[in-house]
Amino acid sequence: MNIKKIDGGVTAPKGFEAAGVAAAIKYENRKDMAMIYSLAPAQVAGSFTTNVVKAAPVLWDMDIVKNGETVRAIVVNAGIANACTGKQGMEYCKKTAAKAAELLSINEKEVLIGSTGVIGVLLPLAKIEAGISLLVKEKESSFAAGKNAAEAIMTTDTKMKQAAVQITLGGKTVTIGGMSKGSGMIHPNMCTMLAYITTDAAISKELLTDMVNEIVKDTYNMITVDGDTSTNDTLLVLANGQAENPLLNEKNDDYQTFKNALYYINEELAKMMAKDGEGATTLIEMKVTGAASKEDARLLARSVARSSLVKAAIYGRDANWGRILCALGYSGVSFNPDIVSLCFESAAGEVKIFAAGCGLDFDEEMAAKVLSAEEVIIKVDMKMGAFSATAWGCDLTEEYVKINADYRS
Amino acid sequence: MNIKKIDGGVTAPKGFEAAGVAAAIKYENRKDMAMIYSLAPAQVAGSFTTNVVKAAPVLWDMDIVKNGETVRAIVVNAGIANACTGKQGMEYCKKTAAKAAELLSINEKEVLIGSTGVIGVLLPLAKIEAGISLLVKEKESSFAAGKNAAEAIMTTDTKMKQAAVQITLGGKTVTIGGMSKGSGMIHPNMCTMLAYITTDAAISKELLTDMVNEIVKDTYNMITVDGDTSTNDTLLVLANGQAENPLLNEKNDDYQTFKNALYYINEELAKMMAKDGEGATTLIEMKVTGAASKEDARLLARSVARSSLVKAAIYGRDANWGRILCALGYSGVSFNPDIVSLCFESAAGEVKIFAAGCGLDFDEEMAAKVLSAEEVIIKVDMKMGAFSATAWGCDLTEEYVKINADYRS
Repeated sequence: MNIKKIDGGVTAPKGFEAAGVAAAIKYENRKDMAMIYSLAPAQVAGSFTTNVVKAAPVLWDMDIVKNGETVRAIVVNAGIANACTGKQGMEYCKKTAAKAAELLSINEKEVLIGSTGVIGVLLPLAKIEAGISLLVKEKESSFAAGKNAAEAIMTTDTKMKQAAVQITLGGKTVTIGGMSKGSGMIHPNMCTMLAYITTDAAISKELLTDMVNEIVKDTYNMITVDGDTSTNDTLLVLANGQAENPLLNEKNDDYQTFKNALYYINEELAKMMAKDGEGATTLIEMKVTGAASKEDARLLARSVARSSLVKAAIYGRDANWGRILCALGYSGVSFNPDIVSLCFESAAGEVKIFAAGCGLDFDEEMAAKVLSAEEVIIKVDMKMGAFSATAWGCDLTEEYVKINADYRS
Repeated sequence: MNIKKIDGGVTAPKGFEAAGVAAAIKYENRKDMAMIYSLAPAQVAGSFTTNVVKAAPVLWDMDIVKNGETVRAIVVNAGIANACTGKQGMEYCKKTAAKAAELLSINEKEVLIGSTGVIGVLLPLAKIEAGISLLVKEKESSFAAGKNAAEAIMTTDTKMKQAAVQITLGGKTVTIGGMSKGSGMIHPNMCTMLAYITTDAAISKELLTDMVNEIVKDTYNMITVDGDTSTNDTLLVLANGQAENPLLNEKNDDYQTFKNALYYINEELAKMMAKDGEGATTLIEMKVTGAASKEDARLLARSVARSSLVKAAIYGRDANWGRILCALGYSGVSFNPDIVSLCFESAAGEVKIFAAGCGLDFDEEMAAKVLSAEEVIIKVDMKMGAFSATAWGCDLTEEYVKINADYRS
């Protein structure tokens, strides 16, 4: 793979600045507003929550991604989701964009907005506006600025999430950087997450859109923490062309190279979210092979990754494989349980668990060791066809309950 | 309503005996095998898990309910589910039925079987056979015998579940009794549950089957504890005609009276299961009204009752209504969030929370009081039509995680 991992996040590509500041939106003594700013007009593609109840900033961004031209900035706040806030919520989006546009000397329709946090509470508009002034003043293209932005969008996240890669297109170095947040209310289509990707690639809006739609299906839509699909899920990809590669406007080799790199960075960010699921101690990677179709493979993988009982068993380091079979069985996919095979794998080794309709005589101690790793892979071969899919989830712990029994207050 | 609640369970109707004994299948020092025996041949109807992975006893019972004639006995064990046990699992069902048939002098195809517990472990056949001998010796028509049976089928249940009612049909007293178990791996279609209903009504198999199919949709299929649909879910209704009412073989007034009573007892047993959900402290009753169709109403109600975040908020006595709107939003049903209204209700009072697209200014202290009751009702009016549905669930607690991180071992 000609994809080179580098340090950094959204400021890694040329021509992007960022900032993260403390605006006291809901939290005290921490950064809670972020900005990404492109020095040149950027093509944009996005993907948004499928929830019928969409937060105001989601509606604002959807309109721009669908009907707008190029964009210049993204303004994000953590702490309050601006969801279920009716007309006033939309009004606040307009005022947020107008304030940023004024200070950046751009059009308000070039400003995208993101919010994450508690649902049903109105934003403190004066604080948002003061935050924007600070963000405009502090934005830089430095590594630190990108990190500040990634920290500012965290809610119950315990770790800042960013990644960057470089590839070469037409002799030019093209960089892709990204940041994301997401820890609870995480479930496919899309998960409760915000993810912002920047790149200096020159690419047409049409190709970028196609690519995002494809990539989302196997990255963000394959992670789950708790089965709750949020009102605010947003992925935005901005491409400002500053790498000066030959414009990507057909599906040639360069297109494929760029797509692989964009896929890689989104998969990385998605896995970071699953691993940092609220209260989680283990990343669960659920690999399904041998399914009769791609959609079957996805359904099977997601069904297991979502199962509360599987998640609790992994937390207990208990090779309770019956729960995995059970979750495959209620996925909605038809299959023959008598030919399925199942094994656990991690840095500690591999244990074969089930084959030909029966549990195998495995070493319980070894299995517990395998399940005690920070990342556990569950591999299932359906033996029905050639399709595979991977879903990512995390274990279910008492801590998840504690966090969510006491979040709003 | 002409339905009279009475004490008792499966032995309340005429002509039924039961027993519960300790057979050391998996547990020590507790009853773990049960039998229900009908003195006369009984019509039978049933409903079974939709999981592709079906336990051996489910396959055994499905065949009898579909292809058999009348039945005489049910043998149930707790502790081991006899699921994912391949051909040997089916073999054990045949041997279990043969043993019971021999001792009861009936045909083995008149013996239904139920198992609940850990998946993937083979039954200890000698202990099962010894248990059957004991059950046949101890079976009685007494109240105590019915209670023993209800206790013997418990797994992680904290409470024995039984109910009985009487109605009058054609001048004759008809009794319906039932017992159930279920606490984890509980989710619609059907939940991880066993429910056994006995009645002395005279009713044709065809009508009984119709009735069961209808009733299941709004009772067992509307409860959820953890979203996991088990491999063993079974409902069986046995009607032995000993009440000597005029045979129910058309959909007349008596049919409706009997159906109401059968519905009532199944709803009671279903609610008991939701209330006794693993680790639960509160029964959540989710009432949806004003939906555009019956199926929409069911989907909406189930989506909220299943949401981990709603369940954790109720446990925290936190009126975090945004999570309810969010769960309605990802149910798959289309609606207008701007006209929905929402309130909480319990023995402690009622609090209006959301209307016309916005949160209302409610008294947080009062809301916390309402949510602290043992049974909490969430009422949502979709304002789109005339259809309604109710789902039952329970709160999500640290205890649920503890129970399930350490179940198999």
